[in-house]
Amino acid sequence: MAKRAEPGRFITFEGLDGCGKSTQLEKLAGFLNQQGIEVITTREPGGTEIGERIRAVLLDSRTAGLDPHAEMALMFASRAQQIAQVILPALEAGKWVLCDRYTDSTEAYQGGGRQLGSEAVLRAHEVLCRGLWPDLTILMDSDVSSSVARARRRNRAAAHEESDENRFEKESHAFFTRVRNAYLEIARREPQRVAMVDARPSLDVVHPEIVRVVRERLSLR
Amino acid sequence: MAKRAEPGRFITFEGLDGCGKSTQLEKLAGFLNQQGIEVITTREPGGTEIGERIRAVLLDSRTAGLDPHAEMALMFASRAQQIAQVILPALEAGKWVLCDRYTDSTEAYQGGGRQLGSEAVLRAHEVLCRGLWPDLTILMDSDVSSSVARARRRNRAAAHEESDENRFEKESHAFFTRVRNAYLEIARREPQRVAMVDARPSLDVVHPEIVRVVRERLSLR
Repeated sequence: MAKRAEPGRFITFEGLDGCGKSTQLEKLAGFLNQQGIEVITTREPGGTEIGERIRAVLLDSRTAGLDPHAEMALMFASRAQQIAQVILPALEAGKWVLCDRYTDSTEAYQGGGRQLGSEAVLRAHEVLCRGLWPDLTILMDSDVSSSVARARRRNRAAAHEESDENRFEKESHAFFTRVRNAYLEIARREPQRVAMVDARPSLDVVHPEIVRVVRERLSLR
Repeated sequence: MAKRAEPGRFITFEGLDGCGKSTQLEKLAGFLNQQGIEVITTREPGGTEIGERIRAVLLDSRTAGLDPHAEMALMFASRAQQIAQVILPALEAGKWVLCDRYTDSTEAYQGGGRQLGSEAVLRAHEVLCRGLWPDLTILMDSDVSSSVARARRRNRAAAHEESDENRFEKESHAFFTRVRNAYLEIARREPQRVAMVDARPSLDVVHPEIVRVVRERLSLR
């Protein structure tokens, strides 16, 4: 007897740059595979050919005066393409989708970090993302200082002579603090969807914690 | 005595592909220049380095399954960049800005043509375009059939063997009819901002009509 596929589940990973979410996403995918679940993993911005081209525009132009509203619109363009081309078809086929970043990132980085505000991001999501929210979001909470350190390394690699490192450091710290605060606010506002996990312990401590959350929240057999 | 610049005016040109708006825009720019007005001309999508890269993504991927929501978000990304980088600085410096297409195009093509609806487009505009609307929009109304003919030529140039020309023709006609109807609805809804001009007469008949509209609506000395 042909069994009609149950719809899949949609899980997103969120957190500051360098919190370890990409690694944990892959480890969770491995675990779910072992449970016999068909999983696809993807990332934002990107995840489709069009999305990767948009990602390239975002990365190249970051230093060339990309307007925050344009940045937000590009994030949503990549997302809309990914929803249509990857996420919805996979979910309909009964697969689980693990996505590295989703609209919470836009709310945290563009809404909080770049100060466009949460409301603007949530309204754009409503219009552009067909109301699709994850079944579960793993928010990996980490220290602001490690994201600042990563940004510092990137800045040094790309530094101009006139780069003012103190100012960069101060601005980065303020930026990532706003991003983290926006994430914490999302977790407070949507406890049903968002599970916060402490990202500071070692990889092998964080992974079982994420598995525990997934088992509990998505009633995994 | 230093004179503080009056803010400039923002004029957009709208209409179906092939209606002659780019030509008329340049002719109006020439006329305004003769009046001693400093004018910049630009287009959408595009108009900035980032915008032209977005335009390239839009044009290349049109045949490769670009999702309508992603298309709309890309249009707004290009627009937001252009507003920040070109339009607002020019207006603040007292220049007049003539732009080939703006949000009305998104409402007509993505809202009407691709059937995402006007409301979605207007809400995205509110969030992404800082509430900036033109002082005057010249809507050049033309026949659907000439846009279909242009689309047909493009389709033939790019045609695969399996291309079904009858179906293409039918769909194009329905598409451009929806676009035109959306334009007409915008003109009905916003008569203060939008002036409709018959685009079918020759170039040299349409230009003075546009000059007349600009003189009247923007109280040009």
